[in-house]
Amino acid sequence: MQDKKTAIAVIGAGSWGTALAMVLADNSHEVRLWSHNEDQVKEINEFHSNKKYLPGIVLPELIVGYASLSDALMGVETAILAVPTKAIREVLGKMRAVQAGPVIIAHVSKGIEPDTLLRITEMIKEEMPKELLKDIVVLSGPSHAEEVSLRHPTTVTVTSENMEAAEKVQDLFINHNFRVYTNSDVIGVEIGGALKNIIALAAGITDGLGYGDNAKAALMTRGLAEIARLGTKMGANPLTFSGLTGIGDLIVTCTSVHSRNWRAGNMLGKGKTLDEVLDNMGMVVEGVRTTKAAYQLAAKYNVKMPITFALYDVLFNGKNAKDAVDVLMARGKTHEMEDLVNVLEERNMEE
Amino acid sequence: MQDKKTAIAVIGAGSWGTALAMVLADNSHEVRLWSHNEDQVKEINEFHSNKKYLPGIVLPELIVGYASLSDALMGVETAILAVPTKAIREVLGKMRAVQAGPVIIAHVSKGIEPDTLLRITEMIKEEMPKELLKDIVVLSGPSHAEEVSLRHPTTVTVTSENMEAAEKVQDLFINHNFRVYTNSDVIGVEIGGALKNIIALAAGITDGLGYGDNAKAALMTRGLAEIARLGTKMGANPLTFSGLTGIGDLIVTCTSVHSRNWRAGNMLGKGKTLDEVLDNMGMVVEGVRTTKAAYQLAAKYNVKMPITFALYDVLFNGKNAKDAVDVLMARGKTHEMEDLVNVLEERNMEE
Repeated sequence: MQDKKTAIAVIGAGSWGTALAMVLADNSHEVRLWSHNEDQVKEINEFHSNKKYLPGIVLPELIVGYASLSDALMGVETAILAVPTKAIREVLGKMRAVQAGPVIIAHVSKGIEPDTLLRITEMIKEEMPKELLKDIVVLSGPSHAEEVSLRHPTTVTVTSENMEAAEKVQDLFINHNFRVYTNSDVIGVEIGGALKNIIALAAGITDGLGYGDNAKAALMTRGLAEIARLGTKMGANPLTFSGLTGIGDLIVTCTSVHSRNWRAGNMLGKGKTLDEVLDNMGMVVEGVRTTKAAYQLAAKYNVKMPITFALYDVLFNGKNAKDAVDVLMARGKTHEMEDLVNVLEERNMEE
Repeated sequence: MQDKKTAIAVIGAGSWGTALAMVLADNSHEVRLWSHNEDQVKEINEFHSNKKYLPGIVLPELIVGYASLSDALMGVETAILAVPTKAIREVLGKMRAVQAGPVIIAHVSKGIEPDTLLRITEMIKEEMPKELLKDIVVLSGPSHAEEVSLRHPTTVTVTSENMEAAEKVQDLFINHNFRVYTNSDVIGVEIGGALKNIIALAAGITDGLGYGDNAKAALMTRGLAEIARLGTKMGANPLTFSGLTGIGDLIVTCTSVHSRNWRAGNMLGKGKTLDEVLDNMGMVVEGVRTTKAAYQLAAKYNVKMPITFALYDVLFNGKNAKDAVDVLMARGKTHEMEDLVNVLEERNMEE
């Protein structure tokens, strides 16, 4: 907790941005919550609520809605970037146009850009000139926004190439309900957060097929192993995937019926087609995009990702979900960790 | 799958022993299922059922019940030891008295012996003279017996100091529904399987307190981290805890309402005392014994295990469950993996 108020900009007033703004306000900071939607800004300032994203929640008065990005960023050292992956380049373009000086950007999104296959940190580096960018920090972990807004105990990780910047962001957020650990592995944190949605889709499928808890636990474990293989080949520390942003986030996403990805998978497992599922959901299912990106990453880095490949066949080649899971189960006998060990050896040889 | 039948003894006809006997019978092996209870043996042979442990399940005819341990073990190369931790020494004593030659003992139990703090493999080594013991194999992983008996997809790990023995056991069990991976880390597999029950108790407490999915995922992640710290200090490979016998088994145990440990924790979280909970359950809650053993192991190996210590205070020192969880959440800022890294460094210095 801080002795004196710090002004912080939170860019994006969806459920996660708003819940994080509440944590900062609980820590007595002056929070400038920017939204491109003027009605939403008005609601925040007049009624201290954001009903669309956090129904029933009263926002602390230290949260002030901003419609002007320029005003929100004026004089702040840190901006929390809380917009969907696909809006990131556009919003960074707007920030670039109005920023007067360099800021620390702490992003809280989970995704991989399709086609470019870039992590969000890499997208930020492409968009922001050095003179406007002090450092990049990633905040990630197992965290339903609704629970954070109810001040239920939550634990997340902050990471950065510059640990001093990560610790600064840790200091801003940490309090009794919201515990913040540091981790120095940016690649591992970003890959774990993004790819867990693939496994949530697959876990939904096995649940939809009625395969039970043993199958789901095995799938989550093997899924984490293939994420770790890819991440490690990309340069991550394999132990990161055993942490909050790996297994922790995977657990929250795979075992909650509130997860959109799990629900979409569940419908696929019950025999619906992808088109039917997407029509039924009426919104973006992030795991579908991420499956395509991970499929491309696996090819690029030459890593075995059997669950991702099986899911890709179900989503994009019309393969029957039950057949795909049965093929997965029928993989040959293997040593549990040999694939990861091979990846580490390959990486050492290349270095 | 085997070309010809192999005779295998399964020692213990509880739910797990019986479910494993079914897997072996599905693979066309001659299965001798031993029980100390003659009525149960009669039921198995006359009605092909074991209603107390697997209600509603029809056993394959290749499973034959044996009341005589000597007959069951006659001429077999492998015995599957499927009895509760506290019965192991007694049953091994009986085997010692009747065995004609050496066997591979594949044990499938999860526990630590109180006071001696021995793993089950170590107990077997103490009890069985070398001339009666070919090898010891451990079979472990995320596996509700009920689901295995329904032939739902299940994935487990076999491990041994002698990988040839592990592969023999893998060959006996592997089939389309029951996938068996090998792993060469005996210590890691046994510690993960035993200590996960502690975290299931603690997860039940946070659920009982109504703390939500974020807290539970964090607890499971941090719980796995402290199990990994202890196991690594004891000589395990830290990566084992990311596998089926680590995180996989932890997920099954913490997220199923069928878990006795989770249910006991849940009642504690809702304000009941340990005595009330144990009265209410009317049977052994393995995690309670294991918490004491882990508490002693942590002291012996000088490893930080904050969740185990907090749970110990709740169970044995009458500490309020909510206060204990709140203290856990309030731990100081730390780097996510520094404790494990410290343990690895300490171990390297000692070697």
